[in-house]
Amino acid sequence: MKIGIVGIGLIGASLGWDFRQMGHQVIGVSRQLATCETAEREGICDRASCDLASLRATEIIFICTPIAAIVPTIELLIPHLDPATIITDAGSVKGAIVDRATELWPNFVGGHPMAGNSESGIAAFEKGLFADRPYVLTPILQTAPVALERVAELVRSLNCMIHYATPVQHDLAVAWISHLPIMVSASLIDACLHEADPTILDFAKKFASTGFKDTSRVGGGNPEMGMMMAEHNRDALLRSLYQYRDRLDMVIDSIETKQWTEIKDLLSTNQAIRPDFINCSALEQDA
Amino acid sequence: MKIGIVGIGLIGASLGWDFRQMGHQVIGVSRQLATCETAEREGICDRASCDLASLRATEIIFICTPIAAIVPTIELLIPHLDPATIITDAGSVKGAIVDRATELWPNFVGGHPMAGNSESGIAAFEKGLFADRPYVLTPILQTAPVALERVAELVRSLNCMIHYATPVQHDLAVAWISHLPIMVSASLIDACLHEADPTILDFAKKFASTGFKDTSRVGGGNPEMGMMMAEHNRDALLRSLYQYRDRLDMVIDSIETKQWTEIKDLLSTNQAIRPDFINCSALEQDA
Repeated sequence: MKIGIVGIGLIGASLGWDFRQMGHQVIGVSRQLATCETAEREGICDRASCDLASLRATEIIFICTPIAAIVPTIELLIPHLDPATIITDAGSVKGAIVDRATELWPNFVGGHPMAGNSESGIAAFEKGLFADRPYVLTPILQTAPVALERVAELVRSLNCMIHYATPVQHDLAVAWISHLPIMVSASLIDACLHEADPTILDFAKKFASTGFKDTSRVGGGNPEMGMMMAEHNRDALLRSLYQYRDRLDMVIDSIETKQWTEIKDLLSTNQAIRPDFINCSALEQDA
Repeated sequence: MKIGIVGIGLIGASLGWDFRQMGHQVIGVSRQLATCETAEREGICDRASCDLASLRATEIIFICTPIAAIVPTIELLIPHLDPATIITDAGSVKGAIVDRATELWPNFVGGHPMAGNSESGIAAFEKGLFADRPYVLTPILQTAPVALERVAELVRSLNCMIHYATPVQHDLAVAWISHLPIMVSASLIDACLHEADPTILDFAKKFASTGFKDTSRVGGGNPEMGMMMAEHNRDALLRSLYQYRDRLDMVIDSIETKQWTEIKDLLSTNQAIRPDFINCSALEQDA
């Protein structure tokens, strides 16, 4: 199959590598010439250029740009494509994209590969990044069934766990498990930095160990990406943040009133329930 | 040197192993006979029993019990010990322990090895657990200088990074980097579980990936230990929780009022500052 990839960052490059390994032909497009050169040299793409017209003869195109560039990229692609071409995306927010993209291109299928690492850009690409990881497809009533089936077939070949959700369901769920954790985690370092005594802050930095490292990790990731998730999934994120603030207030109240069994019950529930949120392959990496 | 260890869990057993490797003689005491048997069989202690009197001839005793048992253990030890014996502890809170323990035993030195993993108990013991990790000693005015120097010398031989802090400084600092993260992390799963739509909760569980895993980890740890940290470091923890809630409110306000550059600035500061909190050996493990 002839596959196009627009945006050769962590996700685009990792998709390209895996598809080429399976024998597909991969044509890449990036805004940066240096990225195109790297993509060809590393064997991520058969050919890569800055020219969207190079995707004319592809059968499926994966748009792996930042969220804000997805719909504009489709608009720029349209003049070059045969109407049978299927377009899918890798955006981490779907409500803001799928309706508009489907209006523009009836053969559009919303997608979200839920894989990544703490890096970004082509240099961070990983072979087999998507294996055993969730890959969400978000069809709507207007989605062409044949396009959906072809995207699913290709994605399944990456050994992902495919899930189907509406864009709204997807956005509410990722607000809980992806966007809320970023804000919760970011507020942790932010709070520490407001320690008024510089000696205490200095000790805190020296004493911080794996617990602090893990809890602060996603809040210390790519700022542009975190901001875009908040901007494009604002309502669902606020809904999760309000609930989180309520639960945090309960914790504070329990500690203020010395209800230690309430704290222990909370932590016991967490310990019991957390494995439900962690799939097997993720648990294996648990320290 | 003849070293005693009371409480042969993760910390006590890992200390025992390392000390024996260096040629010291290690006598262990646990409330549970099965733990004593494991300790002897695994080479963690030369001898282990349930009898505190077995520590009579030791030169330094490490009390590695849960926080609440540290001072009571010293009271029980006193009748058996020569006054020259040095006692130190491994409690993760110091203000609640050091003054009282020093009153009881002038050769007491407060300590806190800042190492661990996600497990607890003797089965979780690790060889070389303390190497390159912070080990805080918390002398007070009444601490015997010779006792402090001997504990420091022994601890240094574990290849730890030794830090000296007052009990108050220690407790304020660990509230930031250890106890606050537990409550922040625990409130995350708690908030998710209050999602009213079971379909969304189910998707959240299925979609959760490494970001959620890391942010929820310390909140899913040992409930008893988390509760005791909160109970014995209540004031410092509340101080950190209030600051955290203020910062979270700022994040919520920025999102409500669509101040996206404020969110980006927050995340950029986090990205820039986080390495200050993460020592080199911890960064190597960063995914």
